[in-house]
Amino acid sequence: MNEGEAQQRAVVLVSGGLDSATALAMARDAGYHCYALSFDYGQRHRSELQAAAAVVRSQGVAEHRLIKLDLRAIGGSALTDDAIAVPQAPGEGIPVTYVPARNTLFLSYALAWAEVLDARHIFIGVNAVDYSGYPDCRPEYIAAFEAMARLATKAGVEGHGVRIHTPLIHLSKAQIIQQGLALGVDYAATISCYAADEEGRACGRCDSCRLRAAGFAAAGVADPTRYQPGT
Amino acid sequence: MNEGEAQQRAVVLVSGGLDSATALAMARDAGYHCYALSFDYGQRHRSELQAAAAVVRSQGVAEHRLIKLDLRAIGGSALTDDAIAVPQAPGEGIPVTYVPARNTLFLSYALAWAEVLDARHIFIGVNAVDYSGYPDCRPEYIAAFEAMARLATKAGVEGHGVRIHTPLIHLSKAQIIQQGLALGVDYAATISCYAADEEGRACGRCDSCRLRAAGFAAAGVADPTRYQPGT
Repeated sequence: MNEGEAQQRAVVLVSGGLDSATALAMARDAGYHCYALSFDYGQRHRSELQAAAAVVRSQGVAEHRLIKLDLRAIGGSALTDDAIAVPQAPGEGIPVTYVPARNTLFLSYALAWAEVLDARHIFIGVNAVDYSGYPDCRPEYIAAFEAMARLATKAGVEGHGVRIHTPLIHLSKAQIIQQGLALGVDYAATISCYAADEEGRACGRCDSCRLRAAGFAAAGVADPTRYQPGT
Repeated sequence: MNEGEAQQRAVVLVSGGLDSATALAMARDAGYHCYALSFDYGQRHRSELQAAAAVVRSQGVAEHRLIKLDLRAIGGSALTDDAIAVPQAPGEGIPVTYVPARNTLFLSYALAWAEVLDARHIFIGVNAVDYSGYPDCRPEYIAAFEAMARLATKAGVEGHGVRIHTPLIHLSKAQIIQQGLALGVDYAATISCYAADEEGRACGRCDSCRLRAAGFAAAGVADPTRYQPGT
C-alpha cells in the first residue's frame, strides 16, 4: 500500500459484535483512517451499543457516530419487534431474526457519511460462510450495492465511486477470530448474542451464540464470552 | 391491468411536494393499494410534513407512516445543515441542497417496509428532466437500486423482486402538473419551497420555487402556491 492510500478515510460499520470488531482491526491494519458508524435501531439488547463503544475505544478511530434508526416503525423482525420471539435453535431458510433491508439501510447511511467526509471506502463485516441465511450478506448483494452507490452520489458523478470492503466475507468464524487475535482484538469487549442481558452477558442458546461458541472452539482459543447465570 | 395486479400493494414515498403528490395519484389511478411513507429528516421547513399529511388525507391511502431520519448527524446539505445557506439562484453542477444519499436512504426504508408488507412495488416521484442536478434522480440510478434490492431481500431470494416505479421521470414540470390536475390532485396542499415559513408559504426565490412557478406557467394553469408577504 502506498502512502496516499494509507492516508485514505474509511467509514467502518461497528455493531459491537465479533465480526465488525475484526473488520475494524483489519481496516486499521491496512492503514485506513477509520470513521466508525453504529446504529441504535431499537435492538432488544442495549448492551450491543455499549459493546460498540468499547470496541471503538479499545481500537481507536478518527470519529465514532451513533445514528438512531426508526426500525421499530417498520417491524418484521424478532430483533426489533417484541411480538416475534427470538428462536433458540436454527430453523429452515431465512430466520425471523432477519431485519428487513437492514444492511441496505446501514450501508446507505455509511454512503451518506462517506460522501460528506469525501471517503471512498466503506468496511462492513458481513460474512457469507456462517451467515445465518441473510440475503444481504452475500457477495453479489455487496457488488450490486457498490454499483448502485456509484450512480447515487456526487462522488460517482465526478468519476470515482465508493468501494465496499468485506474482508470477512469468505472467512469461517474460526478464521475471523484467528485474524482478529493476530491483530490484537479484545473479543471480551464484543457481544454476539441476540438476547444478551443488561450486563452484556450472553444467553448461550441463540443462533448467534452457537456460531460464536463453535468459532472459538474451532479456532482452538479460549472463549472470553460472559454467559448469563444458569447457562 | 388485470384484477390481481389491481389489488397489489405499493409503498409510495410522499414528501409533501408537488411531484410525490402526483406520483401518489398515478399509483392510485393504476389501482395500487397505497402505503404512504414520509420522512422527518430535520428539514428546515417543518411545513413540508404537514403538507405530506394533507396530501395523504386528500387522496386516501391504506396507511401513512412517518419515519424519523437522523440526517443532521450526517450533515453536508443546505437542507439539513444550518451552517450551509440555501442558495437563491441556480448554480453550476450539483447544488448544495443535494442531501447525501437521500433517495438511497428513502428507498431503503421503502424497501424495508415493502418487505414487511409483502408489497412488490415502490413509487417515487423523481424526475430527470427538471431534476436540479441530483445524481439520485436519474433512471440509471433507479435501475441499479432495483437490481440491488432484488439481491437484498427475502422476496428477491424467493424469486420475485421489488419494482421501483418512477412515473414522472421523463415528464416536464408542466406535464406533471397537467397529469396531476387530470387526476384531481389538489396542489394547494403541496409545498415545494426549500425555505417555506411555518404557515407553509413559499419564498418564491429558491430553485424549487422557480421550477414550480415555471411549471404552472408552462402548463397554463393558475398557481395555487401561497407566497410569503413581500415576495
